[in-house]
Order: sequence, then structure tokens, then C-alpha cells
Amino acid sequence: MSETETAGAWLSREDLDSARDRLPILYVSAVPVRVDDRGSVTHLGLLLRANDDGAIGHEVVGGRVLYHEKIRDALARHVENDLGPVALPRLPLAPQPFTIAEFFPTPGVTPFHDPRQHAVSLAYVVPVMGDCRPQQDALDLSWVTPAEAAQIAASGEMTPGHGVLVRQALAHIGFAI
Amino acid sequence: MSETETAGAWLSREDLDSARDRLPILYVSAVPVRVDDRGSVTHLGLLLRANDDGAIGHEVVGGRVLYHEKIRDALARHVENDLGPVALPRLPLAPQPFTIAEFFPTPGVTPFHDPRQHAVSLAYVVPVMGDCRPQQDALDLSWVTPAEAAQIAASGEMTPGHGVLVRQALAHIGFAI
Amino acid sequence: MSETETAGAWLSREDLDSARDRLPILYVSAVPVRVDDRGSVTHLGLLLRANDDGAIGHEVVGGRVLYHEKIRDALARHVENDLGPVALPRLPLAPQPFTIAEFFPTPGVTPFHDPRQHAVSLAYVVPVMGDCRPQQDALDLSWVTPAEAAQIAASGEMTPGHGVLVRQALAHIGFAI
Amino acid sequence: MSETETAGAWLSREDLDSARDRLPILYVSAVPVRVDDRGSVTHLGLLLRANDDGAIGHEVVGGRVLYHEKIRDALARHVENDLGPVALPRLPLAPQPFTIAEFFPTPGVTPFHDPRQHAVSLAYVVPVMGDCRPQQDALDLSWVTPAEAAQIAASGEMTPGHGVLVRQALAHIGFAI
Repeated sequence: MSETETAGAWLSREDLDSARDRLPILYVSAVPVRVDDRGSVTHLGLLLRANDDGAIGHEVVGGRVLYHEKIRDALARHVENDLGPVALPRLPLAPQPFTIAEFFPTPGVTPFHDPRQHAVSLAYVVPVMGDCRPQQDALDLSWVTPAEAAQIAASGEMTPGHGVLVRQALAHIGFAI
Repeated sequence: MSETETAGAWLSREDLDSARDRLPILYVSAVPVRVDDRGSVTHLGLLLRANDDGAIGHEVVGGRVLYHEKIRDALARHVENDLGPVALPRLPLAPQPFTIAEFFPTPGVTPFHDPRQHAVSLAYVVPVMGDCRPQQDALDLSWVTPAEAAQIAASGEMTPGHGVLVRQALAHIGFAI
Repeated sequence: MSETETAGAWLSREDLDSARDRLPILYVSAVPVRVDDRGSVTHLGLLLRANDDGAIGHEVVGGRVLYHEKIRDALARHVENDLGPVALPRLPLAPQPFTIAEFFPTPGVTPFHDPRQHAVSLAYVVPVMGDCRPQQDALDLSWVTPAEAAQIAASGEMTPGHGVLVRQALAHIGFAI
Repeated sequence: MSETETAGAWLSREDLDSARDRLPILYVSAVPVRVDDRGSVTHLGLLLRANDDGAIGHEVVGGRVLYHEKIRDALARHVENDLGPVALPRLPLAPQPFTIAEFFPTPGVTPFHDPRQHAVSLAYVVPVMGDCRPQQDALDLSWVTPAEAAQIAASGEMTPGHGVLVRQALAHIGFAI
């Protein structure tokens, strides 16, 4: 998950690090998709990103929810941060996410692991209609079919937890996984 | 719910009547909405329709699912039947409906009642982006705010069951009802 | 899916066959699970059943919804039919299913296929607290861990579509699949 | 929402106050219900509680999620804190909440308002099977029918936001509201 949002946030990096040792941090995750004119998902967007420790992995869009920021606005901001200003996302109508991903600093507590923190992410599938380009710290953005996404997600080429989320998203939208 | 779809269907009116006495009939319901560029619902669309017995009431979009028709295609067809060919609906990404409305021929079994049949309707909220016009047997189409929709739905001005569905849809998309 | 329920139904076998050629048939599916005292799923129940054409496969619980029968009552009836009268199911609180499985008579339209009919199944995860025994036409009932269920579901040992449903259920309840 | 959980938490009251000024705080809400043997909700449990400023209002169960605490465990802890150790809750099978309630310190941003903080609450309906008693700072616990709950929730007798949540929960479980 990108840390680039901290620039405009209300916490210094130090304060955020301190909070991360003591509070679950609220995140949103958005699995970006392309849909046909019947609303069927044709492609999923996967970002390629280098983590702090140099490991490279595919990821979905997401990041922290800021103080006094609505879920909807956090989703819009992270889509813009990760896919650019003309991605034209169709933000979810309803607050109900398809799942809650609980990232624990300790591996094995849940299928989601984040060594930096205890992050709880509200996960949505978000169609994007516009032009998408990888931003900032992302090395690449690839659009793959649901079948390819399922395979990549199972292959270990994704940042821990993100592969699980992609496959849960595919199950939610009706694909055989 | 509109019966106009029976024209292109696989059942004669007689056969359908006979099936209706002996099987639950699968329906889809679509609460048509207008959204702003953040995905927030600004208006709901209510059709004004005269029923077989002459009663006039507001309704949401919907109707039967045909043999060998996908849910997604049934939604698209009913939106077109009720709102016209350029309504440009954003069909749901996932098959999970926000609720299942069980219309019983006997009043009081559930909050939904349909004297003609036992209909089980998969209910979705469907944004429409294009030009909408009431079609065929609809007398009018009005766009009202969520607050107005909540009030109309509670007032008894809607076809039985449709008001309940509108208020459940509003609750689902996060409004106070 | 079991046909044993037709005994007490409102349609003769002939009439049902005729309806099956012309209408989508409403089904419910229940993935039976054992839960610990924290509500975490520890085991899934898989029925072993011989189909009409002699093929043997694992299945989840389910079957038709009858005329004038509530979803909730159809779930209770099928759990009793398949797992016995003291299975003590915890029926779902809310009508929202975790998915809708669209079984088509034509293979490949959706991940679900049923050569006999177009069946649309509302799918729920249903914990059972009591003693379960395979009934009637079921050869066996086995309780397997989520990891084992995921593997069996992917192996082709399940009746077509049922494996997809099991893996979608596992994704819904938060497992990595 | 109860603050009693801070006793066993990882933050001093001071640190928590400081975090509350700068981060959204993760909460869980549980609408406690009684169900019949078919899983139908017969009653909702409402706590009567005095707020910090002396105002008395009905509330549902809930509170903060602690660092390194699973959603499931936070729900169990708050049910025990609010309803006692033998409430015997049936915790949700799946992480998907029926809604996300975004409590803002500024009134009017969402239908949820909490003057103390920006709290984001994952909301679930939780059946309790055992003996329930109001604990600690709760003055009373009353069990009311869904119709009574809908009325109380609309009357202004509930702590701000809690009435909205109760009515959204009723809509989710299929009641006319």
C-alpha cells in the first residue's frame, strides 16, 4: 500500500509511526477493473510496486483513510494517486464493502500480513472508465483478464495479502476461482 | 411490475398464468438512481403506472427473468423497457443483490404482496447515466431526492411492496430512513 | 441438487419438466458449516451423491423453492432433507445471499451448469449445530476443513458448479482461496 | 459508544485523545437481536446509557477495535462488556458488514455524528442466545420488537447515529421501515 498520501495528511511521519504501534489503521482497498457495456468485468488492473525492502510485487489500489475524510473520498484520492487524475472511477454506491481485509503485523493471524502495522481495509471493486497511468512509486500498471488475474494472484507474484484480495474480489463478482 | 416483457418470452400468457399458480416466479428489481461524480446518489427515479385494476402507483423498474436469460441481461432489458433505449444503465458488477424481495399472493406473509403470483425479486440499485423516458404503460417518470423518495415510499403512493424496496435501497446506500 | 423434494410439491413431475423447459427455476443453496464458539468456520459439510446419469460427486445442500414457500423455509426444508431432522441449522438473519449462482442448461454461459434446467440459486452459508446424517439419495456426508474443501472443490470431484460455489463461499467468509 | 474498553487497551487516555484528533478510529457496532428457531428476528436489544454530557439515550452494542485485535474478537469483547459474560453471541461468519457507519465530529457530513472523534464503525447484526444484563455504565437493557425498535429509532430517543443504524439494520434483515 502506498505511503505517498502522508504528504497531505494530518500526521507527521513520526506521529504516524507511533500510532501504528498502538492503533489499527483504517485503509481502503480498490480492485480496479474495466467493464463492458453490460457491466461484466473484462480486465483487472494490477500495479507493480517496489516495497520498502526492495521486493517487487503486484498490488491493488489503496491506502490510509485520513482524519475527517469520507470512505468515498479516500477511494477517489487513492485511485487518483495510483492511476492518475483521469482514471474516471465509478465509486461504489453503497458503503457495504465486499470484504474487510485485516492485515496483521504478525504473519498467520489472518490471510493478510503487513509487517509495518495492523491495518484494517475496507475492500471494493472499482471500475475505471478513463485513461490510467501508474503514478509516483508504481513501476507499471498492467490490465489482465480475470483468468490471468486469478493465476497471478495465486502465483506469489503479488505483495502479501493483495493476491488473496484479488481472488476474493473475483469470487465476489461471480468468477470461478 | 411490467408485463410488457411477455411479448418476446417463451411462454404464452396462458402457460404463464398456469405456472404462476404453481411456481415462484423469478424477478429482478432495479431502483434507478442518478449519481454525482463521486458516486453519491442524488436522485431516485420513480415510474408512475396504472395497475390492472386501475390503481395508480409509483414503482421501481423490474420484471420477470426469462428462460435462459442472465440476471444481468434481464436487468438491462427491463431498464430499457421501462426507461428507454438510451438510459445507459451501469449494471451491477457482482451478482450479490442488496436484498431479496419475496412477493406473496397472500398479504402479510412478508412486507411484499403481489395478488397475481408468488414472485421472488433480486433487488439492485442501478445508476442510469443517459436520457430516460417512461415507456409503454408508464404514465410518468419522476426524479426525486433521497429524502423525497423516502417520504413518497412511506406515504402509500407506491404500488404495494415497491415503497418498502425503495426505503430498503436507501438504507443500503447509507441514507437515514 | 436433490429432486426428492418434488414429492411434497405442487407440481407433478410432468408439469415440472414442462416448466423447466420454459422458466428459470428458483433454487436455494446452503453451504453447511461447523463453527467454533467465536463463529469461525472450522469445517464444511460435503454430501456425496449419485446423479441421474450415475456420476458421483460432492455437493452442497439445496433444491427448489416451492410455490408459496419462503426462502427461509426452503432452506430449512432442504437442510432437513439432506442432513436430517436434528441438524439444527442457524438460518440466515438477512435475505441478502452471498452470491447468486445461475445454472444454465448450456455449458459455458456462466461457471454454473445444470443440463436439466435453467436454475437460479440464492446461496447462503449455513452453520449446523446438531447431529447430521446423509439422507435419502446421499451416499455419504463428510466434514472437511476449509483448506481441504478448497482443494476438493478445485479437483473436479464435485458436481459441476458446486465446487465453484464452495470456493466462492470460502472467499466470502474470509479464507484465502 | 462505551469507553470502558480503554482499561485493557494499549493507549493511555491521553494518547487516545491525541490520536482521536488526527486519525479515524476503527469501531465495531453490533445490533443485538433475539431470533426464533427459523432465524427470524423477534426482538432487538437496546441499551440505555448516559453520555459524558449527561444526556440519556438508547444505544446498540459497540466500541473501539484494539491494536492487534481481530474484528471478531472486538465484537465478542464488546458484547461481553455491554451484555455480560453469558450473552452467548452468534458472531458473524463472514467479515462483510451490512454497512459502514462513518461518525464525523462535524454534524451533517454523514447521518452519523460523534462530537468526540472521527469513528468508522463496521456494523453487524448479532443474535444473542444467552442471558443478557446491562453492564457497567448502562442503565438498562430493553428488548423490543422490530416494529417498536423502528419507532424508537425514529423518535430521537437514541444516541445520535444509533437510531439510523438500527433502522438500516432492520432494512437489511428484511423489515419494512
